[in-house]
Amino acid sequence: MDTDNKLKRRVYFISDRTGITSEGLGESLLNQFENIEFKRRTYPFIDNLEKAKQLLNHMQEEVDADGWERPLIFSSIVDSEIRHLIHAFPAFHIDFYDTFIGSLEKELHVDAKRLIGVTHGLNDIERYDKRMAAVNFALNHDDGVSDKDFQAADVILIGVSRAGKTPTCLYLALQYGIRAANYPLTPDDLESTQIPNMLKPYRQKLFGLTIDAERLHHIRNERRPDSKYANINTCNKEIAIAEELFQRNGIPFMSSTHKSVEELAASILQACHLKRRF
Amino acid sequence: MDTDNKLKRRVYFISDRTGITSEGLGESLLNQFENIEFKRRTYPFIDNLEKAKQLLNHMQEEVDADGWERPLIFSSIVDSEIRHLIHAFPAFHIDFYDTFIGSLEKELHVDAKRLIGVTHGLNDIERYDKRMAAVNFALNHDDGVSDKDFQAADVILIGVSRAGKTPTCLYLALQYGIRAANYPLTPDDLESTQIPNMLKPYRQKLFGLTIDAERLHHIRNERRPDSKYANINTCNKEIAIAEELFQRNGIPFMSSTHKSVEELAASILQACHLKRRF
Repeated sequence: MDTDNKLKRRVYFISDRTGITSEGLGESLLNQFENIEFKRRTYPFIDNLEKAKQLLNHMQEEVDADGWERPLIFSSIVDSEIRHLIHAFPAFHIDFYDTFIGSLEKELHVDAKRLIGVTHGLNDIERYDKRMAAVNFALNHDDGVSDKDFQAADVILIGVSRAGKTPTCLYLALQYGIRAANYPLTPDDLESTQIPNMLKPYRQKLFGLTIDAERLHHIRNERRPDSKYANINTCNKEIAIAEELFQRNGIPFMSSTHKSVEELAASILQACHLKRRF
Repeated sequence: MDTDNKLKRRVYFISDRTGITSEGLGESLLNQFENIEFKRRTYPFIDNLEKAKQLLNHMQEEVDADGWERPLIFSSIVDSEIRHLIHAFPAFHIDFYDTFIGSLEKELHVDAKRLIGVTHGLNDIERYDKRMAAVNFALNHDDGVSDKDFQAADVILIGVSRAGKTPTCLYLALQYGIRAANYPLTPDDLESTQIPNMLKPYRQKLFGLTIDAERLHHIRNERRPDSKYANINTCNKEIAIAEELFQRNGIPFMSSTHKSVEELAASILQACHLKRRF
């Protein structure tokens, strides 16, 4: 038994599908609380009574062994029998599906289908193909050097090496189906503050990424320790020219230093008036 | 004005951050309703009163022009002034933050911080670095051919070309920080049902992906039309041998045909007992 009772709580994310939505919302709520240590576990694909019973037995064992305050459950379960079973477990329980589906049915004057697997499932092959096409686009046109790539791109991210372009392109593809190419500003490009020739026909699609020099130095140093490439002076100089290039040419840009890929992607979507493709 | 009133509804996802969580949960609820056409718009980063007022004016114009039933709003807004403003808008309103934060405060005997930007923000550099390291790992070890890659991998996805390995690796990296390598089974490998030599030391890390032959044929044909590679007989044969290889060697595997990358990633995490790295 733990004596420091008040500060630890178990958190179970339970879903009949991937659990990604429950985790996302649950996390955003838990992150609002300090001074509590949450021990999180996610259980996806709890889609029949047998699995639910097994899980609850396992949870009961954990909870008994801890002796902490009752656990928290964040769930999203469509089947009412499974939901009732989980509800009977001694916990603080939030069910994201159950909380809202009734009032939505009333508002929409339609009964919910009450079928699972309609969110992150593969219901629409065409929609899915678009998403995969976007991922392949990002992969094939990473550090893009062909004009053809840029023609087909929804957006072209430009910035110095390691400013965060590639992960952002991938996230744009996976989350929104956006075809994002990227163009790394090379030392040659950075001899002037002109838009590189190859990009000139596509200036409406350009979005710049910049980054703090210290952070860039750190990232590059992990990759090539003590290189000229990673040197703080190189980083400072490259970033200064890149930012001047963005400003002079009216290219919208943003710093990746304090932003996650989710924030960068959502910001780019908004700034470039892009529409998700699925 | 539209005459087909009952079948169309506007849906606004409004967030003080990226809106990704609100969209995710909102979508999973809306997907439960058939026969209604939802016109969705997402407004991220509504983090001050000025932006909120502008947005609501814009929404009012849209709503007035439609003449449909009142719109739906799915929001997640920490600031109570902004939230009250949105609440006053004539709509069916679900606020994911507001609905749960009060009861969570009671349960946890702690006041919420009521500070925005703690979910998809970059609060923890170390955590973020892990995620980016995983993305870089997936990118650098795509179609991995070096033994060093496999040593550092958390999991190694194997399967025939175009079975869905690469997007799944990327999603595992972005969502969970998992270092996923991948190994495409080449025609040479598929001359026997043995584990390829290079992979033998890592059989505990292997997870197989398979796919329906018809679907594989379709995907490959988009890439190389009318090739031997895309031929339905080639697809059938490669898949049959790959599945036999998985079965004979006790490698867990799964079909990507009817699964999204979210489902594949969550399933692999579960099947391989992997823990997210952040």
